[in-house]
Amino acid sequence: MRNVTEENLTEAVLRQITAQDPRVQQVVTSLVRHLHAFIREVEPTEDEWFTAIDFLTRTGQKCDAQRQEFILLSDTLGVTMLVDAINHRLAEGVTETTVTGPFHAAALEMGNGAMIARGPEGQRGNHAVVRGRVLDVNHNPLAGVKVDVWQSDDDGFYDVQDENQPEMNLRAILTTDEHGEYWFRTVRPSSYPIPTDGPVGELLLATGRHPMRPAHIHFRLTHPHYKRLTTHVFVEGDEYLDSDAVFGVKDSLVVPFVLNEDRAKAAEYEFPGPFYEANFDFTLEASQ
Amino acid sequence: MRNVTEENLTEAVLRQITAQDPRVQQVVTSLVRHLHAFIREVEPTEDEWFTAIDFLTRTGQKCDAQRQEFILLSDTLGVTMLVDAINHRLAEGVTETTVTGPFHAAALEMGNGAMIARGPEGQRGNHAVVRGRVLDVNHNPLAGVKVDVWQSDDDGFYDVQDENQPEMNLRAILTTDEHGEYWFRTVRPSSYPIPTDGPVGELLLATGRHPMRPAHIHFRLTHPHYKRLTTHVFVEGDEYLDSDAVFGVKDSLVVPFVLNEDRAKAAEYEFPGPFYEANFDFTLEASQ
Repeated sequence: MRNVTEENLTEAVLRQITAQDPRVQQVVTSLVRHLHAFIREVEPTEDEWFTAIDFLTRTGQKCDAQRQEFILLSDTLGVTMLVDAINHRLAEGVTETTVTGPFHAAALEMGNGAMIARGPEGQRGNHAVVRGRVLDVNHNPLAGVKVDVWQSDDDGFYDVQDENQPEMNLRAILTTDEHGEYWFRTVRPSSYPIPTDGPVGELLLATGRHPMRPAHIHFRLTHPHYKRLTTHVFVEGDEYLDSDAVFGVKDSLVVPFVLNEDRAKAAEYEFPGPFYEANFDFTLEASQ
Repeated sequence: MRNVTEENLTEAVLRQITAQDPRVQQVVTSLVRHLHAFIREVEPTEDEWFTAIDFLTRTGQKCDAQRQEFILLSDTLGVTMLVDAINHRLAEGVTETTVTGPFHAAALEMGNGAMIARGPEGQRGNHAVVRGRVLDVNHNPLAGVKVDVWQSDDDGFYDVQDENQPEMNLRAILTTDEHGEYWFRTVRPSSYPIPTDGPVGELLLATGRHPMRPAHIHFRLTHPHYKRLTTHVFVEGDEYLDSDAVFGVKDSLVVPFVLNEDRAKAAEYEFPGPFYEANFDFTLEASQ
């Protein structure tokens, strides 16, 4: 392994990889081959190589308890959706998956009908009722499914990004009833930019891309006898549905948020005026 | 770009890459293709994907003013030597290059013959004199070449790793004389492990590799009319010459450190006893 050259270097490195764990051996071998192929293709100058080192270093250093810049990098390079697709080759009829994103956090268990918008949001009249059923592939309702929801407010901010929102705002863990139903009151989410004040923002700018995600509500459904489902429900009509910065949109997950101007209905929901209604049914696949 | 699937995702991402700078376009396009090819080949589970995110994050967070863990990662995966090889396709007869490594730092200019070991090292009797000439490809001596040297002590530690060493210990910038000669007094360096208390250490352990580098002295030669040369001189006989953790060894850079037991000569060099002598001539390529 002396006298490495452009020609023999990749094999020289691979000969040193002798992991006891066969999966580690497979992954690191593949990594070295693909990483070297990338370097051979672009032939970075030494300055470019150092720019890459610096980019990766700053990406790591941008991460903290509230921010995961490497997940953003994976999301914006399409890697997260690729891993998602590989891990969710779904049976016919099962609800499609999408990215988890960096904003999932602990939430309180709440009863159906809970108002999860507990902060100053909604002053712009964007209240909404979201409801639906959770079913198995034979259309039977599933009771007792935990429905973990989280979302931005109607201005595009999650609680962890916005000091004006109370802790655990716009988050809840609901449970489906005996009819497989869940429902909650909230605000209609807004499209928003992923954080652009770090290396990922620099990369988007340098490659001519906008940082926007179309408006959506996150869902994670769990039940002991069914495969966990992590997905979004998107707001129909959003201008970014065809250019999501993280490639997460699927037609089957886009639903209308229909304006309801019935005052009596608004009063029943304790909303000050017109509100939106959205319906989405989920279909879960049984565990093995 | 809605409805991405395993099949169309890579092209969907590439369609979004519209950099103004053609080099950025080329590099990011190549990165996406190779990164996706790696993911498609290994098919990471979601847990494995998160392990990778966490590894990269911790690698960034291990970096500080004294430590560059991403350079270590690049070094140990052979990427640094590959970039070095690509950037130094040398003319016949020119001295071969090797990695810069993470330990280069500012040093004082010193006259030829300077004793650069100014700390407690050398108590083990490992003093050395290193000398040689700097030539052009026609074997003409080159005067006025700046010879930046840095090395570990005879126990394998650089000054920045060892609070017992004074600042800028075992570093100097010499200048070749009218005969193209440089020389300095020092200690014979020792083989040493690259730092293993971070993610790179974990990766080496998981892949059955030792972290050792064979003993060497770093050189960086600069002259306004010649291409900069960054390389090492290795100590012949070192047990790690054939398994350098960063793949940096080339036969042409290995020289004997010959023991000299001549007491008068030792006294002349102000050494307490027997010492080593090493000779290495460098050949520089003219700039374009």
